[in-house]
Order: sequence, then structure tokens, then C-alpha cells
Amino acid sequence: MKPKFRQLPRKVAMVGAGICKFGAYPDKSSRDLFVEAYKDLEYSVDKGLDPEVIEAIYIGNFSSDLFERQGHTAPIMADSIGLVPRPAVRVEDACASGGVALRQGVIAIASGMYDAVLVGGVEKMTNLPTAEVTDTLATAGDIQYEIPVGFTFPGFYAVIATAYMHKYGMTPEHLMKVAIKNHENGALNPNAQFGVTIPAWMEGRKAAAVKKGKPVPAWHDEMEFLHDDGANPMIAWPLRLFDCSPITDGAAVVLLVSGDLARVFSDNPIYITGSGQASDSPLHDRAYLTTLAAAKLAAQEAYQMAGVSAKDIRLAEVHDCFTIAEVVATEDIGFFEAGTGYLRAEEGVTRRLGEKPVNTSGGLKAKGHPVGASGVGQAVEIWKQMRCEAGERQVPGDIPLALTHNVGATGNTCVVHVFARD
Amino acid sequence: MKPKFRQLPRKVAMVGAGICKFGAYPDKSSRDLFVEAYKDLEYSVDKGLDPEVIEAIYIGNFSSDLFERQGHTAPIMADSIGLVPRPAVRVEDACASGGVALRQGVIAIASGMYDAVLVGGVEKMTNLPTAEVTDTLATAGDIQYEIPVGFTFPGFYAVIATAYMHKYGMTPEHLMKVAIKNHENGALNPNAQFGVTIPAWMEGRKAAAVKKGKPVPAWHDEMEFLHDDGANPMIAWPLRLFDCSPITDGAAVVLLVSGDLARVFSDNPIYITGSGQASDSPLHDRAYLTTLAAAKLAAQEAYQMAGVSAKDIRLAEVHDCFTIAEVVATEDIGFFEAGTGYLRAEEGVTRRLGEKPVNTSGGLKAKGHPVGASGVGQAVEIWKQMRCEAGERQVPGDIPLALTHNVGATGNTCVVHVFARD
Repeated sequence: MKPKFRQLPRKVAMVGAGICKFGAYPDKSSRDLFVEAYKDLEYSVDKGLDPEVIEAIYIGNFSSDLFERQGHTAPIMADSIGLVPRPAVRVEDACASGGVALRQGVIAIASGMYDAVLVGGVEKMTNLPTAEVTDTLATAGDIQYEIPVGFTFPGFYAVIATAYMHKYGMTPEHLMKVAIKNHENGALNPNAQFGVTIPAWMEGRKAAAVKKGKPVPAWHDEMEFLHDDGANPMIAWPLRLFDCSPITDGAAVVLLVSGDLARVFSDNPIYITGSGQASDSPLHDRAYLTTLAAAKLAAQEAYQMAGVSAKDIRLAEVHDCFTIAEVVATEDIGFFEAGTGYLRAEEGVTRRLGEKPVNTSGGLKAKGHPVGASGVGQAVEIWKQMRCEAGERQVPGDIPLALTHNVGATGNTCVVHVFARD
Repeated sequence: MKPKFRQLPRKVAMVGAGICKFGAYPDKSSRDLFVEAYKDLEYSVDKGLDPEVIEAIYIGNFSSDLFERQGHTAPIMADSIGLVPRPAVRVEDACASGGVALRQGVIAIASGMYDAVLVGGVEKMTNLPTAEVTDTLATAGDIQYEIPVGFTFPGFYAVIATAYMHKYGMTPEHLMKVAIKNHENGALNPNAQFGVTIPAWMEGRKAAAVKKGKPVPAWHDEMEFLHDDGANPMIAWPLRLFDCSPITDGAAVVLLVSGDLARVFSDNPIYITGSGQASDSPLHDRAYLTTLAAAKLAAQEAYQMAGVSAKDIRLAEVHDCFTIAEVVATEDIGFFEAGTGYLRAEEGVTRRLGEKPVNTSGGLKAKGHPVGASGVGQAVEIWKQMRCEAGERQVPGDIPLALTHNVGATGNTCVVHVFARD
């Protein structure tokens, strides 16, 4: 089918953004995390927020049903922050739920039906034991044709990684560079689940061994640490533990308003000028494994809508549920040629001080991946970076344009947004 | 919070509608039912449908996660009808998922982002044993404050029924009239799960007893049948089995296009001129039990948007998950004064040949209630009635305006649409 790309009928501005610290919270439920993120958003609105102005709420959530046995999550979230009787809609597209909720917010504002919409994402995953989380995430695959033969998500992405290595000559060491870079960034993000660099992690493990009177591991550097089957066990070849994003509880929210109202709320609004989304068949039914067709299409739509191209984008938050996913993402959004993303990562191009910083927040890898919240969390990072409020991890210089890239399952859903400054 | 009501920025037309026969299908999955409904829609588009024109898909689904262990349902449905790579979005608001998906379709067209959108609803419920279905539906309640004390949905609606009886003097016999009426209608709907009237049901039970050589029950009429604890057991006082909608597998779809394209697809398009949605706190936290505040607000919004009032509406499909829900619904949408809905039902005002026909399809009660599909199924019935294609159950005379009313949980989400002819 030929894609049809449109322009946004009116401007959409982001005038607030909030997030809770991602992590594992046995004593909190989704609504607790959501309230924390919303409170954080309240402080972020430069000129103050009267909740009365919010006309509708879109909530990205993958599976509160299976994680918490709570369905109908949207009005529960609306109620928990005092927004009843505003219409509350849950949007689900697996791990792209947050990004797709953001897109619904954009469409809703652009339509003229609403002037102010709250977009949130939330997931509470750590209620279940790890094996059950893996099974729950697997419901985002194809339950008729993929899951019965034994696939779970590390397996899916191992297939993608293997195909990519075969085609382009990448090695597992290249993937480790992605993990090292994202932990470097996460260490500078106070809201990250894992706020430590991999060298610091390694030293911590050594210190713990000393304390317990056990043999101290003989790692000399982070690459040695990452090759240790004990410290970094194999999950699904070639992916090891540090190639995988963690299981995370978290929530994030942004406030969208029509462009003409932006300055009523904010001294420094960020505009969403491009939005693209596409779907794809499940992985087992695709011609290509080393690129996500839906991501390329979504990026193309977002760029066309915004009237920009990849070279104009200063930085991006991409969906690194696994390290290989980041490599593919940087190619799908047009930052790098197909088959070269791993080389650019090795060269440091995607590091915080590189030419094209990717996942300055730490990404899903280090910041954490509360699946339904991740797409909205990406927008929160863009908000902070573009407003020069990212603290120690602030990318230097002007950031006129930035991008988010959010993937559901193995790319069955992909959604891309382009953000611009005034 | 004060409600803010808007106008639709541009006209939205329904130019196709399809549905599968609702029932229990052990050998079919969601995608099979969805394909059947889509095939039915293809035949309904007067001037033929080139799928290429469909730009996006919204799918209402409550919990494929728990019913089938299949999340990320939207792209699976898109793929199953060949609509990849179109963006596919699942919308979840419990039993209002279908109606809310319809509203997202309306907003998306109105926004100018799309000219043609497919809106579907699907649920496959009979995979699980009945007790597990009840528990799964209960996830639409509040898992922190309601479900742990023992509530499931028959209990919630029994509370509403009891409060209503206490306040207005209604008796359980009044509720039976609603069930009798909806089965009368369902018997004329070839797609209904229960295509039999209650008298026919009663005679069937008698015939079965004769055949088995067992004592023949001494029911003289349907009211005696409905008072028999064996034939119609108590579920949650005052609600008996025939006060409850069934567990159903089913799917429904409609095709929405921008108003200016309506005649390109259809000789007789139906316009959606009003759309309202509101949320509410869970039942335990409300001041009133005998009305759904969110339904009243959603109806008010839809009427204002359409520029009409309740008295203008010729017929309605309302959310009769339980008989009491229909009584309350007919008041909330303004057909009748508060506390009089049961009297009007008793008088036959809501019967097919009455002044204000309600649930000519058989309603959720007789047509069946595949929860995420029900809101879209309502729109399919409106399509047929307004186009005089409802066969034996066709309401006589002109139907210039009609309405759908769809409820999530106990009214935590309510969504109302107004439909108009050219």
C-alpha cells in the first residue's frame, strides 16, 4: 500500500513534562507512579497549570491487565489526579503504547476538538516474577504463530541481531558499545533505574567481593566485564544481560496544547511538528529482518510532515529495548546508512558529545523500560534537552530539532515524532 | 470541572458497516471473527471498497491480553485484513472500548489527518471458563478498592438496581420486561447470539423435558418462567440470569470517511454529527448510584455537538449489560425523566413499535456482548436501521436521527454518538 502523508492542520505545542524515577517499587501501584509523574509535570509548566484547562487524557499502557489485573486504566489514572469527568482513553500498541498515545494527543489537538490534552504512559511490571514478565511481554508477539514455537522477546531480537551480524559483519562487541554508552548517559540521569556506568558497576562488583571475602574478579576493563559469563550471562545468543533493557515500574506525562496557546503556559514551549506511525506483519512473516519497515515509514511520515530530514535532527531518543534495536533504529530514522549504525556507534558518533547523540537519557537500557511509559518518557527527555534543563547530561549547543522513535513488539507498530523549538 | 463542548471541525460520514454473527466459537480466534466482520463490511459499501483508501485503523478491545493472551491486537487485526502498513491503534476503555474507538475515528477524520478510517471492535471471551470470564471482566472495576472486597459485575449492577428500587419503587418484574423486549428484538436479528423470544425459550425447555421423559415444567407464561429459580437462577439479588448479558465472541467494523467523500462510497451515507465522552470515579466513590454522571455528560456533549435534543432522536442502542443498565441508560440519555425509565419500559414505549425504540438489535442482552466489539456493534445496528436494511426488525417510518450509548465498567467511561441522515 502506498503511504499517504498529511500536514498537521494546526500547531501542537508541548508545554509541560513530568516523570517519576524509574525503578522497582514493590509498594507502589500504577496510580501512585502516575501521580508522581503528574506532580513533576505541574512544576514544569512555566506559567503554572490550572488542571481545569485539561480537556482529555490519553494513557499509553501495555498490559496493566496482566501485570496488575487492572483493566480500564485510563479513568483510574484520570481519577487519581482529579481529572474526572474528562474523557480518558487508554491506548495500547505494546511497547509503542506511549508513543502512540502521544500521537493521539497530537491528532486530538490538531483536530480542534481540544485545546489542551494530557498524554501519559504508565507500566507497573515488577509485580510479577521475571519469568512471568517475559511471558507477559511475549503476548505482544503473535500468539498463534510465534509464541507457541518458543519465542520470547530476547529470542526475537537475537534473530534480528544474528541476521544483522551475518549481513553486515557486526560482532557482539559492537553491541556492547551501545550498552556502555547508554549506561554512561543513564549515570547522569537522576530518574534512571540504573544510574551507574558499566566501569562503576564493575568496580562495585569487585568491592562487594572484597567485602564478602570472596575471590575478586580479574576484570581489567568494561569489555572484560561484559565478556564474563557470570557478570553478564548469555540470554539469547548473541544477546547477553547487558544487551537487554530491564524490567521497570514507571510513569511519564506531557501536556499538549494548541500552538496559539503555547505562550499562555510556557516561556519556552516545544512544538511537535511531525508525527508518523505505521504497522507491520509479525516478525515471522517479513521479507527483511535487519530493518523495521514500519519505523522507516513512520520516520518518513514524520519528516515530511515537519518538512525536515534526518540530517537536520540534533539528537534522538530511540527504542533500545535491546542493543541491536538501537543500531537498527539509528539506520531506520536515517541517521546512518543501512549496515553502518554499529560502526558509527563504535566511533562514538551517538555518544552524548558526539555528532548525533542518541538516548542521552540512558535509553530504555539504563533509564529503564516501563513499557507503556517509555514512549512518553522519550518525549520528557526531549523536553529537557531542548529547554537546556537536562543537567549534567545536557547536550551542548543549540537543539533546534529532535526526534523520538518508539517501537511496539518487533516493529509491528512504530511511531516517530519530530520536535522543534520556536 | 466544567465541561467544554466543541463542534466537529468537519463532517464525518459512516459509509460501511459489518458484523459477524455473535456467539460462542471455540474454533475461532479474534482475528477470524474480525475478518468475518470486515468481509461483511466490504459488501455494505454501496459503491465498492478499495482497501487502499483506508488510512488508519482503530480497534476497540477490552482484554485480548487476559482472554487470549494476545496483546498488541491492533496490528494483528490490520495484518489479518491486509491493511499493513497502515497505523493500527488499540483503544481500551473496558466495555466502552468500541464506542471510544469510534470516537477516536471521528476525531481522526475531523482533524483532517485522515480521510478514511476503519473502526473495529473485537472480543473473544469464550476461551476461558465462566468463572474466569467473570474475574477477567472484574479487572474493569477498581482492583485496589472494589474487587478485593468481593465485587464482580453482577454485584456492581445489583447495587445499582437495589438503590434504584429503593429510590423509585421499581420491582424485579420491571426488569424482566426489559429482558423480554430485548429477546423479542434479538429473535429478529440473524446475527444475534440468542435469536429466540423468551416464550419460545420456555416452550423449547418444555419440549426438551418431554423428549427426555422428564416432568414438564408448569410455566403458563414468560413471567412464570422468569420467576423459576431453576430456569432463571438468581445471580446477584435482584438480578437473575435473564437480567445479565451473555459471554460472547464477536467483531464489528464501520468505515468512516470525511463528509465530502461520503457520496464517493455510498448512496446512502449516515453522518456522525455528535460525539461525547466522559469519565467517572469508580462506583465505590460516587455520590449517586441510580444514574451514571458520565453518561449524562457524554449525552449532553453529543447533543450539543449535533445541535439536537433527546426528543429528536428516533431510536437508540444503549448499553444493557444488565437490564437495570438499560433502564438507567434511557434516563441518562434524556429519553425519560429520572426514576421513570422502568415505567416507560413497562408501557412498551421502548419496544420496537413503541415511541422510542431501544435496542432493536436485541441489545447486549440478546444480540450478545463481546465487550470490546459492543460499541461498534451498536453503530452497525444504527447503520442498518437508518438505511432501512434491518429486515424483520426494521423500525417503521423515517429515522432522521439515532443514538448509541456505550458504557465501560459501571460508568467509569461513557460514550454517546448521534447519527443523522443527509
